[in-house]
Formats: sequence, structure tokens, C-alpha cells
Amino acid sequence: MSKTANVRPKRASRRPETGANGDAAIDLGRLPQIVGYMLRRAQLAAFQDFLRSYAEAEIRPAQYAVLTVIERNPGLKQSQVSTALGIKRANLVALLDSLENRGLAKRVPVATDRRSYALHLTDAGTALMGKLADINAAHEKRVSAKIGESGRRELLKLLHGIVDAVGPSTLDEDEA
Amino acid sequence: MSKTANVRPKRASRRPETGANGDAAIDLGRLPQIVGYMLRRAQLAAFQDFLRSYAEAEIRPAQYAVLTVIERNPGLKQSQVSTALGIKRANLVALLDSLENRGLAKRVPVATDRRSYALHLTDAGTALMGKLADINAAHEKRVSAKIGESGRRELLKLLHGIVDAVGPSTLDEDEA
Repeated sequence: MSKTANVRPKRASRRPETGANGDAAIDLGRLPQIVGYMLRRAQLAAFQDFLRSYAEAEIRPAQYAVLTVIERNPGLKQSQVSTALGIKRANLVALLDSLENRGLAKRVPVATDRRSYALHLTDAGTALMGKLADINAAHEKRVSAKIGESGRRELLKLLHGIVDAVGPSTLDEDEA
Repeated sequence: MSKTANVRPKRASRRPETGANGDAAIDLGRLPQIVGYMLRRAQLAAFQDFLRSYAEAEIRPAQYAVLTVIERNPGLKQSQVSTALGIKRANLVALLDSLENRGLAKRVPVATDRRSYALHLTDAGTALMGKLADINAAHEKRVSAKIGESGRRELLKLLHGIVDAVGPSTLDEDEA
């Protein structure tokens, strides 16, 4: 980790680069200038901070996203959540099982379609989401500490641009 | 997927938002304004394009990163690659097994340390990396199609800022 607040991307490699890690002896070549590589490093960093921030509430990023979408769209079906968030079907089932076991969300049978369930938050789930809002504000502030609020807005705009360029995606395999 | 080139982040939610997906009927709430959420969506999009781009070469993002680092630092140890790229030790072992089986990289025993190996590209690995450079340029251009080259540079700068704010990270668990 660089100890300065310098956030300029590293230049073409005349000398070894440190990129997103702290080992000055290792030359990362072009990696720190590759969008996909840096997106992955930044995403891992943000998720790391998220996991720390929400450790007490025992909420992981995908759980937070699912709870948000169910809260904003009560009665949503699993397939809709899966599409909206780009979460694989099988992963979503396990995730909902966990939320249901913890009493945060519930699956309600749909009279008109025996195979599907309408998703709702429980009262406990709604109460939890209220508490999480403050944690999220602090988390956002921490991950954006070096780029500031205007940098954060600019970053969001650019990230929407990347998603728009490629189209929606889920990965059907592990990404390692 | 929005059909316009509009990359502005969506405003506070007076109406349902479409965010990073195409389903206008689903309200994603604050998710499209959360850095971690959008980093994940953009990273998945970029990796999706990477996987398509490199499908013929059968190279995945992490393999590309590992090959790059070995090429730039011949003789590197596994533990150094693991630290530099934030790849979990166990995942790296499997990844190197695969590269070695395909004849792209090799582990050379280190005389002074029986437990560690020095990593090198084979001639085939070096030749492959030469070919991949062109694919990478086209991939970068595609993912940056909506934000342009200046947006791409700005994005890299901001992503380095996110990593610098949180510190280097690996995830020891699945991220779903």
C-alpha cells in the first residue's frame, strides 16, 4: 500500500510498479492500467471494507443487495431478483434460505403459480435494513476517503458507463 | 440495458430505477449509488467481456494476471505472486497446475529452499503472451466504449484511489 495519497495510475513501466499491492519489488507490468484488473482489485477492497463494516450484523454484500431489492419491491419473485442483481439462480436460492432461516425474509406461496414464491421482508428484516443505513454511509465514506465525494460521483458515473458498454452479466463459473 | 449513451448515475429514487440491469419494473433503491455494488456490476461486466475476448486462447482473468507477473518477474515464488495479485494460496496452486499442464509456465526447484519453486514462462507461454496483447487492446476498447479514453484514464485513477483507501485485500470466502 502506497503511503502517499497519490492516486494517479502508474505510468508505462520504465521501472517496477507497485500497482495495487505493497510489494515494490514486483513488477505488475500493464496490469495497473487494465480496467478489468483494477475493477477487480477495487471491488475486492470495497467488499473487504463492507464485510468488516457489516460483520456485527452478519450481512454480506449480496445479502444486502437482495434485502434492498425485496424491501423496495415486496412480492418480487426469485427469478426477478436473480435477473435484476445478476445473481446466479442456485446462489440466490441458498442466499434466500439463509435469510429465511434468520427470520429476515420470507417466501410466500403465489396462489396463481404453484412453482413460484413472492418474497417479502419480515418485520425483523425491515428493522435491520433501517439500522444498516448508517453503517452503509460510514462504509461509503471509508472506501471513498482518497477520492472524495466528487470523485465518488464521478466513479459511479464511469462504472455505469462500463456496465452500459458491455451489457448485464452474471458469471456462471468462479472467477479465479 | 439502457439503449442510450447516458452514463449519469441515477438520481434519488422518485421512480423505479433500472440501475445496472434492464428490468425497468424493478426498483434497485440506493444500490446504483453504492460504490461497492457498482464496482461489482462493472467488474462482472468487464470479466464477461474478458472471458469472451480470450475464449479462443482459453485464458481467464486471473491466469492472465499470473502469466503477466511471471513474465515480468522470472523466478518469482508462488507466495510472492499470491501477495502481489491478492490471489488465495490454494487458488494459485490450482491455477499454476493448470498453466503448467498446458505447457505455458513451469515451476523450477530452488536449490536453497526445498519447499519453494521459482516460476518461469515456457517458450510457449512467452509466445502466447505476445499474441494476447492485441486481444487485450480490443477488450479495453470495448469495455470503455461509453466512457472513452479520457474516461478510462479517470476511472483507473479513481480505482487506484479506492484500493489505496482500503488497503490490499484478498477474500478468503466466496463473495456471493
